Amino acid sequence: MSLIVHKYGGTSMGSVERIKNVARRVAKWHRAGHQLVVVPSAMSGETNRLLTLAHEISAQPSPRELDMIASTGEQVSVGLLALALQAEGLEAVSYAGWQVPVKTDSAFAKARIESIDGTKVKADLDAGRVVVITGFQGVDPDGNITTLGRGGSDTSAVAIAAALDAAECLIYTDVDGVYTTDPRVVEEARRLDRVTFEEMLEMASLGSKVLQIRSVEFAGKYRVKTRVLSSLTDPLIALEQEMRSGTLITFEEDETMEKAVISGIAFQRDEARIAVIGVPDRPGIAYQILGPVADANIDVDMIIQNQSVEGKTDFTFTVGRGDYARAMAILNDQVKNHVAAERVLGEPKVSKVSVVGVGMRSHVGIASTMFRTLSEEGINIQMISTSEIKISVLIDEKYTELAVRALHKVFGLETA
Amino acid sequence: MSLIVHKYGGTSMGSVERIKNVARRVAKWHRAGHQLVVVPSAMSGETNRLLTLAHEISAQPSPRELDMIASTGEQVSVGLLALALQAEGLEAVSYAGWQVPVKTDSAFAKARIESIDGTKVKADLDAGRVVVITGFQGVDPDGNITTLGRGGSDTSAVAIAAALDAAECLIYTDVDGVYTTDPRVVEEARRLDRVTFEEMLEMASLGSKVLQIRSVEFAGKYRVKTRVLSSLTDPLIALEQEMRSGTLITFEEDETMEKAVISGIAFQRDEARIAVIGVPDRPGIAYQILGPVADANIDVDMIIQNQSVEGKTDFTFTVGRGDYARAMAILNDQVKNHVAAERVLGEPKVSKVSVVGVGMRSHVGIASTMFRTLSEEGINIQMISTSEIKISVLIDEKYTELAVRALHKVFGLETA
Repeated sequence: MSLIVHKYGGTSMGSVERIKNVARRVAKWHRAGHQLVVVPSAMSGETNRLLTLAHEISAQPSPRELDMIASTGEQVSVGLLALALQAEGLEAVSYAGWQVPVKTDSAFAKARIESIDGTKVKADLDAGRVVVITGFQGVDPDGNITTLGRGGSDTSAVAIAAALDAAECLIYTDVDGVYTTDPRVVEEARRLDRVTFEEMLEMASLGSKVLQIRSVEFAGKYRVKTRVLSSLTDPLIALEQEMRSGTLITFEEDETMEKAVISGIAFQRDEARIAVIGVPDRPGIAYQILGPVADANIDVDMIIQNQSVEGKTDFTFTVGRGDYARAMAILNDQVKNHVAAERVLGEPKVSKVSVVGVGMRSHVGIASTMFRTLSEEGINIQMISTSEIKISVLIDEKYTELAVRALHKVFGLETA
Repeated sequence: MSLIVHKYGGTSMGSVERIKNVARRVAKWHRAGHQLVVVPSAMSGETNRLLTLAHEISAQPSPRELDMIASTGEQVSVGLLALALQAEGLEAVSYAGWQVPVKTDSAFAKARIESIDGTKVKADLDAGRVVVITGFQGVDPDGNITTLGRGGSDTSAVAIAAALDAAECLIYTDVDGVYTTDPRVVEEARRLDRVTFEEMLEMASLGSKVLQIRSVEFAGKYRVKTRVLSSLTDPLIALEQEMRSGTLITFEEDETMEKAVISGIAFQRDEARIAVIGVPDRPGIAYQILGPVADANIDVDMIIQNQSVEGKTDFTFTVGRGDYARAMAILNDQVKNHVAAERVLGEPKVSKVSVVGVGMRSHVGIASTMFRTLSEEGINIQMISTSEIKISVLIDEKYTELAVRALHKVFGLETA
């Protein structure tokens, strides 16, 4: 008997019939002798409906009140799922985040989980109950409801699994695992049976939208065995088959892993590149350039600074395309003269393409293979940034598919 | 400067534009220097939508989970209203029942308020904030969300007004006050400027659906000055005019009251009458007849027992029409032989018509005027029941309008 956490996304909870299917699946696990905690998202469309209402009422809604409103979507889900489980003949009880409690900081709309008290939940589990807990939300030290931001239910599920020392956290979703790249771009993309936590972290942050990045961080920090698998299979599929499906995020580099140098090609469209050219190279210059951008709540992604030549340097970074115009205005109006830059250049249509693989650490030549392949396809590299297990390049957006397909092929990802 | 509680029903909260109108009205009161606590219901249709989902999932949904689900409707409302108030330039904060906290017992779906801690709310008010609190719900000693049952937001508002020692509780609704009778039945029905708490209690329990009866009980117990008024007026109507509109529920029988012997004619259709005939008159017989009916969760209204003749008595009572068939089955199957009754008779189509008035206490002849009037109209009286301030008769349902109109006229209710 193991303690297992299931997480179901909004699509899986999207209708009465689908909720009943979730209950059938959970009941199957329970009947096999496992203790179950289930973390469902709001029914698909519900969070958007609520936020639209809020924005119709106020152009600049208070984050505290938005969280009060948005958190109700998950509360409805847990109640409905508990009813569906009871209709399956199970004992089930639902809790909102504050009832567990799931304690967070007070950063409304993007709160971070600080602690989870598992006492009440464990007592329920020991009494034979299935416990259904709202994802996406918690309660701050003053008793205000907080939400973790979009996709936060993944994080809730992994954090709850960590707090309860669960044997495994199963993230049920509308894809059947993590792929070597997006199958819509590369037909030969292959599902990975396993991926290391660090690779998953890079994949998530680089645009593979399977898991929210903070849930992966949590899984890594607390070493929660996490599996991404499909909620679209028959809910009564054999347990042994289901337990081996999807993609497992592991923490060991076993022999299987060693063979694969590169595990996937990630990419992120809708990026924009901004360069501040000819800046006097003095301490604090990075902060003077990026501080005003961060103050405007614009996320900066890749950042590179060239070797300075004759006391001057170029400072280049990327932002999401939606923030491009605002970022350019801030740089031209507030930063350019202040830091005595020569010019501010912008390019709003770029994408980032990355090769990711934990095996890269011990293999030379990955970077040169990547650069050669792109060169042979006539794709110009605008920026390069690397980490221990990934190499990212920024390219003209129109070459995204071409680059991803060529890299997927050259690294042999279509075969296991 | 006074502390005022406003309560708005689901229709008043039914759309973004209506919520903005509520905010305009509240802002007007706040600008006039008052401290405001606002208790809104769920947006109209929302509670039904949620309960329908729940019943589609489970034929016998658990009351605890139903409360978890249904309570979200009010939580969305308080968040949206707080946003609308902020858009009006006010500082506003919303609380769910558990955040105040509003403490109740654990009777899910029909919980009773046990205590309200006003500390947090008063601190907000003193800091200049408008406080928006969910109606209809609270939290039980184990931290479960409870709801007070349909219409419970009226009770929440009055209870909050009592806990905060508010100067007045204004119940905004889609009628403009309490009438001498239903204006749809009697064209000349007149709005009452004032009604005593006891009269209101009789009116509410007798079918004037303006206020939930438990809110009236609360108003009486804690002597909360409560006013029923229209939410359909221009939200920026002059405050002095609004303060005198609607119907005030008072606790003094002032000189104005003394003039009115009868304040209204209440009626309740959809009743059914059941008589158990020829029952041996011995102690415990009432319990033996009504016990099984109560065990089946059937509410019994009027109850009369005749003087016994030759050791036998007749026992007559009324139930709601929806419960008639079930009640008859229980009596015929379980009760009749057990109590050795001669017969069980039923009449499913009756209504109850009542004259209500605190002035009745010191005036003779009200009953005889009522009976004479009905007799002159050819209406047979099937049952009579009286209290200090009301006389109710049961009649054939088809005579309801005729009886109400005749009584409204004979007691001179069309003129102040």
